[in-house]
Amino acid sequence: MTNRKAEITVIERRMYATYHPCGLPYAIGGEIPHIRHLVEEVPRMPGVNVMIGHLALEINRDEKWVEVQERKTGEKKRISYNKLILATGSLPMKPPIPGVELDNVFTLRTMRDGEEILDALSRATKAVVVGGGPIGIEAASALRERGMEVTLVEMKSGVLPTMLDPDMAQIVVERLEQEGIRTLRSKPVVEITGEEKVQKVVVEGEEIPADMVVLAVGVKPDVELAQRAGLEFGPTKLIRVNERLQTSDPDIYAAGDCAESRCLLTGRPIRSQLATTAIRMGRVAGINAVGGDEVFPGVLNTVVTSAYGMEIASTGLTTETAKEGGFEVVSARVRVLSKPHYYPGARHIVIKLLADRKSRRLIGGQIIGDGAAERTNLVAFAIKYRAMVEDLVRMEYCYVPPVNDRIEPLVIAAEALSRKLG
Amino acid sequence: MTNRKAEITVIERRMYATYHPCGLPYAIGGEIPHIRHLVEEVPRMPGVNVMIGHLALEINRDEKWVEVQERKTGEKKRISYNKLILATGSLPMKPPIPGVELDNVFTLRTMRDGEEILDALSRATKAVVVGGGPIGIEAASALRERGMEVTLVEMKSGVLPTMLDPDMAQIVVERLEQEGIRTLRSKPVVEITGEEKVQKVVVEGEEIPADMVVLAVGVKPDVELAQRAGLEFGPTKLIRVNERLQTSDPDIYAAGDCAESRCLLTGRPIRSQLATTAIRMGRVAGINAVGGDEVFPGVLNTVVTSAYGMEIASTGLTTETAKEGGFEVVSARVRVLSKPHYYPGARHIVIKLLADRKSRRLIGGQIIGDGAAERTNLVAFAIKYRAMVEDLVRMEYCYVPPVNDRIEPLVIAAEALSRKLG
Repeated sequence: MTNRKAEITVIERRMYATYHPCGLPYAIGGEIPHIRHLVEEVPRMPGVNVMIGHLALEINRDEKWVEVQERKTGEKKRISYNKLILATGSLPMKPPIPGVELDNVFTLRTMRDGEEILDALSRATKAVVVGGGPIGIEAASALRERGMEVTLVEMKSGVLPTMLDPDMAQIVVERLEQEGIRTLRSKPVVEITGEEKVQKVVVEGEEIPADMVVLAVGVKPDVELAQRAGLEFGPTKLIRVNERLQTSDPDIYAAGDCAESRCLLTGRPIRSQLATTAIRMGRVAGINAVGGDEVFPGVLNTVVTSAYGMEIASTGLTTETAKEGGFEVVSARVRVLSKPHYYPGARHIVIKLLADRKSRRLIGGQIIGDGAAERTNLVAFAIKYRAMVEDLVRMEYCYVPPVNDRIEPLVIAAEALSRKLG
Repeated sequence: MTNRKAEITVIERRMYATYHPCGLPYAIGGEIPHIRHLVEEVPRMPGVNVMIGHLALEINRDEKWVEVQERKTGEKKRISYNKLILATGSLPMKPPIPGVELDNVFTLRTMRDGEEILDALSRATKAVVVGGGPIGIEAASALRERGMEVTLVEMKSGVLPTMLDPDMAQIVVERLEQEGIRTLRSKPVVEITGEEKVQKVVVEGEEIPADMVVLAVGVKPDVELAQRAGLEFGPTKLIRVNERLQTSDPDIYAAGDCAESRCLLTGRPIRSQLATTAIRMGRVAGINAVGGDEVFPGVLNTVVTSAYGMEIASTGLTTETAKEGGFEVVSARVRVLSKPHYYPGARHIVIKLLADRKSRRLIGGQIIGDGAAERTNLVAFAIKYRAMVEDLVRMEYCYVPPVNDRIEPLVIAAEALSRKLG
């Protein structure tokens, strides 16, 4: 704890303090038996006053107060601050196409979204998921687990386009198809049709019957309050912050989905908008707001998703973003067993590592298979500390047959990449 | 490949090229259904001649040849070399106590050991395992899995003494006891008694009935050939090598259990004697022997074992070895869930991290629970690159509920340690 004397007020519009949006797809799929378990009780922390069910209406930067309104009573009051942290997050995007307001067209972000989808499930047999990012993949798998006929529609040529190169994405597509999820790529949605309720999703050249649609096309920052307060915005349209996460007003910090991040590799402003980035930014903003000194230099957008027990993770740049960032990309992909071939339950892990030709430094990693998350965390650590490919070749690791094989898959991938670098 | 023109001869006393000793406990326990699957075929590699069933009798360093004898025919011949690599390994130690030569007293190292133990199982009901290191723990669990009454006897006060601090070892002991394995600590074995076959293991103050004993008290290097060749030995009684793994004869390299390692943290010569160290040393010796230039700076003894689906891993120094190495040790232990509390199948992970008070650098990590191996690999990477505790606090990680929780357990452990460091 940085400052035990700090008086902290948390203003939260929801009627509860915290919930776990990343759990929603798994509650819909049934792996999490009770969706209400995703809601946390208001934590009791000394010196922290959590005001649930309150809207923040206005920030007065000169007089340093925030006007809040209690939703239940309509009562307004002013809360003064020395330092203010904006953690207003983001809202799911609705694409600007006809029909998004029809019944049974959902986004998947709030508890209510989750509960409505669960409720609609029982009366639906055909679902279309729009968007092939992590949430789209997770939603499609969840609906398929519930026995629905599922079509996943992605605008770009591959799924998980911000995480994976096309060759890696193809592995995911094949798995989804195997599980009976129809996957349409390079297909923008033109229109959603129906009377009251959705009946069809119209994509280029095809009409897909649907009793239910889940829109998972990304999020937009919830920055109205910051805009009205006249704070500066960055090129990503998120609140501009410095390394200490101060906005253009030094007494106001911003953290999470509403705040701009920086790519650790290219130095460019980016939207990170991950739960883990939000948590890490929140820590830095919190420390600084009460007098500490901590920096948030940027992110590698380390991310994992999971469908059908298949872990898919990535960190750093993809081949596309690396080229955009001015790197001469060299990459290698290997497919190895998670355990010794003689040990029951061995499965394939596919690892793709990316490096910059000139510096031989690692700039990205994409992993599909058991242990993908933890291995990707190691790659992220290595990238952050500017490791060369050969540092992974020489990494020390441990081995026991029930857990892994005698040569760590990351080492095998790094050796392949080192050879390609020559 | 470093040198495609190299002519390589491998001299192997066994009648097969490679097998996986680390798999033996799991073949005994029945997880690996066929013990013979642990044997690999002689690999066919261009330029490599594998001579199985041949003994290396003598090295002539002046004339640069090795005398070998074919076991089947008794025929001898000389094989000349430019560079020689000694990878003679180690043999299981038999403690110098009466009775170790009785029937049904086994070590657990070779295929034959494994087959004999499997054979003896059917006629035995009571087993004593001597030694609480990884192999002892694995053997005890395996025999227990087969329904035997098992007593594990360890001379030191805790199990896995080279891997774990006593508080962490206690968690393992409790688990073993839960599974019905009786665990005696601080109990040196005095004698093994019986007529022909073992009947009792005598420890201080107690006689333990046994139809079967597995000795897992460590290994001794197989260095007779190197001794007779007059090579130098280090303080650990293993073959002394430099960073390039050259012995005192620059044309002879040594790698694996017969070669001395160095602790990356203390700089002291140590016995590493792990499969992973052997593989990594072999790579370095091989590259250098054919004209490459690679170094093996030392090890952190990163190691994992697994019993009853519980992963136990460690890297770097324990509190004891850190003190011996002159560090002022500060440590923190945390117990966290492997997955969100609302996700079925969440289990506890216990992590202990050790740091040096003055430099705040990480010097050790001990982890019990799911993902222990991969997380320990990350800690090893961090230690190797001289990371401070705060580098782990700030590490970037990924999160999805089926795989892990929203704050990486290593971060939670590092935060606890950072607070203790003040």
